[in-house]
Amino acid sequence: MIQNLRMRNDYWQLLFSPDSVALVGASNTPGSWGFGIMQHLLAPAQRSVYPVNPTVSEVCGKAAYDSVLDIPNPVDLAVIAVPASQVAGVLGECTQKGVKAAVIISGGFTETGEAGRKLEAELVKIARQNDIRFIGPNSMGHADTASKLSTLAWTGKIAPGPVALISQSGNYGHRIIHNGMSSGIGFSKFISTGNEADLHFEDYLEYLAQDENTRLITGYIEGLREGRRFFQLARETTPGKPIVVIKAGRTEESARAIKSHTGALAGSEAAYAAAFKQAGVIRVDDDDELCDVVLALLNQPLPRSNRVGILTIGGGLGVVAAEACEREGLKISPLATSTMEKLDACLPPRWSHGNPVDMVGISMAENPAAFSSLWALIEDENIDAILLQAPVGLDADRLSRMFNNEEIKSFQEMERRNLGLLRQRVEEHGKPVLLVKPALEFATDTEILSSFRSEGIPVYPDPRRAARVLHHLNRYKRHLKAAGK
Amino acid sequence: MIQNLRMRNDYWQLLFSPDSVALVGASNTPGSWGFGIMQHLLAPAQRSVYPVNPTVSEVCGKAAYDSVLDIPNPVDLAVIAVPASQVAGVLGECTQKGVKAAVIISGGFTETGEAGRKLEAELVKIARQNDIRFIGPNSMGHADTASKLSTLAWTGKIAPGPVALISQSGNYGHRIIHNGMSSGIGFSKFISTGNEADLHFEDYLEYLAQDENTRLITGYIEGLREGRRFFQLARETTPGKPIVVIKAGRTEESARAIKSHTGALAGSEAAYAAAFKQAGVIRVDDDDELCDVVLALLNQPLPRSNRVGILTIGGGLGVVAAEACEREGLKISPLATSTMEKLDACLPPRWSHGNPVDMVGISMAENPAAFSSLWALIEDENIDAILLQAPVGLDADRLSRMFNNEEIKSFQEMERRNLGLLRQRVEEHGKPVLLVKPALEFATDTEILSSFRSEGIPVYPDPRRAARVLHHLNRYKRHLKAAGK
Repeated sequence: MIQNLRMRNDYWQLLFSPDSVALVGASNTPGSWGFGIMQHLLAPAQRSVYPVNPTVSEVCGKAAYDSVLDIPNPVDLAVIAVPASQVAGVLGECTQKGVKAAVIISGGFTETGEAGRKLEAELVKIARQNDIRFIGPNSMGHADTASKLSTLAWTGKIAPGPVALISQSGNYGHRIIHNGMSSGIGFSKFISTGNEADLHFEDYLEYLAQDENTRLITGYIEGLREGRRFFQLARETTPGKPIVVIKAGRTEESARAIKSHTGALAGSEAAYAAAFKQAGVIRVDDDDELCDVVLALLNQPLPRSNRVGILTIGGGLGVVAAEACEREGLKISPLATSTMEKLDACLPPRWSHGNPVDMVGISMAENPAAFSSLWALIEDENIDAILLQAPVGLDADRLSRMFNNEEIKSFQEMERRNLGLLRQRVEEHGKPVLLVKPALEFATDTEILSSFRSEGIPVYPDPRRAARVLHHLNRYKRHLKAAGK
Repeated sequence: MIQNLRMRNDYWQLLFSPDSVALVGASNTPGSWGFGIMQHLLAPAQRSVYPVNPTVSEVCGKAAYDSVLDIPNPVDLAVIAVPASQVAGVLGECTQKGVKAAVIISGGFTETGEAGRKLEAELVKIARQNDIRFIGPNSMGHADTASKLSTLAWTGKIAPGPVALISQSGNYGHRIIHNGMSSGIGFSKFISTGNEADLHFEDYLEYLAQDENTRLITGYIEGLREGRRFFQLARETTPGKPIVVIKAGRTEESARAIKSHTGALAGSEAAYAAAFKQAGVIRVDDDDELCDVVLALLNQPLPRSNRVGILTIGGGLGVVAAEACEREGLKISPLATSTMEKLDACLPPRWSHGNPVDMVGISMAENPAAFSSLWALIEDENIDAILLQAPVGLDADRLSRMFNNEEIKSFQEMERRNLGLLRQRVEEHGKPVLLVKPALEFATDTEILSSFRSEGIPVYPDPRRAARVLHHLNRYKRHLKAAGK
């Protein structure tokens, strides 16, 4: 079954940026796949869409055809969403029509047992004999935000951006997309790979490694069909484009569940772990961790090494953050003498006099000393990355109870200036700064946090997650160094 | 320093439900402690509040006194927020006035070094000689939602409820309170213990173990001053009231940070871990995990054992949930034959035919089969707890695009009926049901999730956190069994 056919670029063009699409199984029934996909295909209104359904005369206002063979114009891509038993027939008609690319949404193949496995083998045979390539079967669809194509029924509009996602679970992919968008991550392409009867995870990886719209590749993996090819491709790709993956199936029952999900074999956990490490692939546990790492990779420099400075407004917050960092293999670096002097000059005498730097209550918004402390940590040669756990940004409502308009205006100007400086200093010093959201009322306001986000400072809900991100950035940096980058 | 003075109840009455409070260091300056505390003291308007500040004639509209000695009426509780050097003098005046209870907010004592340690010893001496008991110093204040008392400057209004919190960090306590409230948890009492010069963590624990308004005790611990007493009290308390704690300081640098925070010693991690386990104390890593466990303890029965049923709408979601459960020591139980038959009768033929139960796309809202599947799992004798990872509840906007008003109305009626049944069956069968929020658009709507929450079904953002909760419930159940409960 292993192919290693390097797919020609024109096939990718047809799959991701077709001029015309036929939807076989198009439907007027709200709640059905054929209806949901039709809505998404029609949304951009920039390509020809041909619904195919022999039982109706039109679908969503478009004339319906009995078969793809009846469509009077060329078809670049066929989307197939009919019962499993009819798919081979439809695929055969597509080849007669000269269609070279398809997405098979229909389920009911290898994942259901022996009869389904035979149906699926039939699809592969038709494709090989007729030079048609396809995603699926049992795929939830795919999307390209640059060409505004979506064959997804349920996922809604995907925000454009530099992250590609290849997912061996449609639902989990959907989860990653929505989690990512809510963190401000945009996507270039999304592929729900389904059973991978024809195109494999590795084919998509090879394509995305070259894709100019993709700066970072993410994946949800249950089992790889071409492990050696994956790791060869990953090794070549990671020095230029990070790869971040979830690999499920580390436990007995989850491996069994994988088999009944897509028919894949989870494979040896030890072999995967070693190979990911060697290829510089960043492996995460779940969608939160995936989005956390992606946010930092997109916006922050990689730290030179693992020495962290913690800046906090409360002793307990600092204690918990230090513990979280150490458990992720990071070092809580002693401060340089010059840093101690700078902090003595700007903080109240009760400050912690060490790392974590407890500013004993000073907040970023209302006191320039907090930003001065941050600059001191960024300039410290003993520190490679900073974890900031302090209330940040201005809350107009809170300020109005405490200060007059003139004072508030000057705070706001200061904040703008300091946020600009922060961006600049992060780049100058090549040191990532990650913000941990404190639980103080005014810092939970998303509008406020967005001012940090807009300067590329990722915001995490707790120190454990921020520390985990720094762990990954460090490992990736070490890999790049070893690879001579 | 160890006291073991069992404090008389009338002291607790004065601390948590005083008829009159003096605030020494009251201030008209917005943003100051003396202003913030004054706002909270005045809010309920049901007790006498006397601001003390010799430099002004009134504070927030109340006549100010030069000293507590000038207050013409009795004072039950003194809140002291003046510079460290003045605290001993103020405490002395309080004893002259006959005050028997105080909260010392001021910092600048043991946590700052030798000079501060001496100042703090002086406070203890005054208290011992004059029969006055105090919280702090270096406390962020305390609160009692039943008596509507709050000496906190920054935390805002705390939602009332059955959970008490004792915190050795004011800021971290604040974080727990806000996290808890956003999950729907209410609090009975909150104490920021500060340096514990007089009253110790153990004193509060002993009091709360008897407190009728408290069904569950939570804590943030950096170091215990009376470890043996703590574990004796905990052992006596946990069979009737769960105790959930964060114990920080498991790593070298976090232990060092603790020393500079409150002057406490983190102590031996191994000794703490063993003692927590033996006393049935539920130990968690951070505020999220604390709130997660508390939500389940308040609303759900304890599972008989560790066998979990997973109900999901997507194969990949089921795989990741199974892995999360197994990593927490839970078992993905095989389904009983009768359960298989029930599921065959209500799910499409493509369902996973095993645990995790993948309903292949069916959602709770639109298909009664999803609830039927849930009933089948609850009734299965091989299953002790259920992790539900499916889109739930009705999204009016989404439904209106797919169904007519008559249909929507019938869905809504069905949902109400099924949610009521769910509550009932959870209780009947004594099996916890935890909901994992799927990332599907309509399930992220907090209004929808709140209908589950209002039936006592806790909602978690990912399967890892839900599995962790089940791990804790199981361990606690085992402890109760061993204790003969």
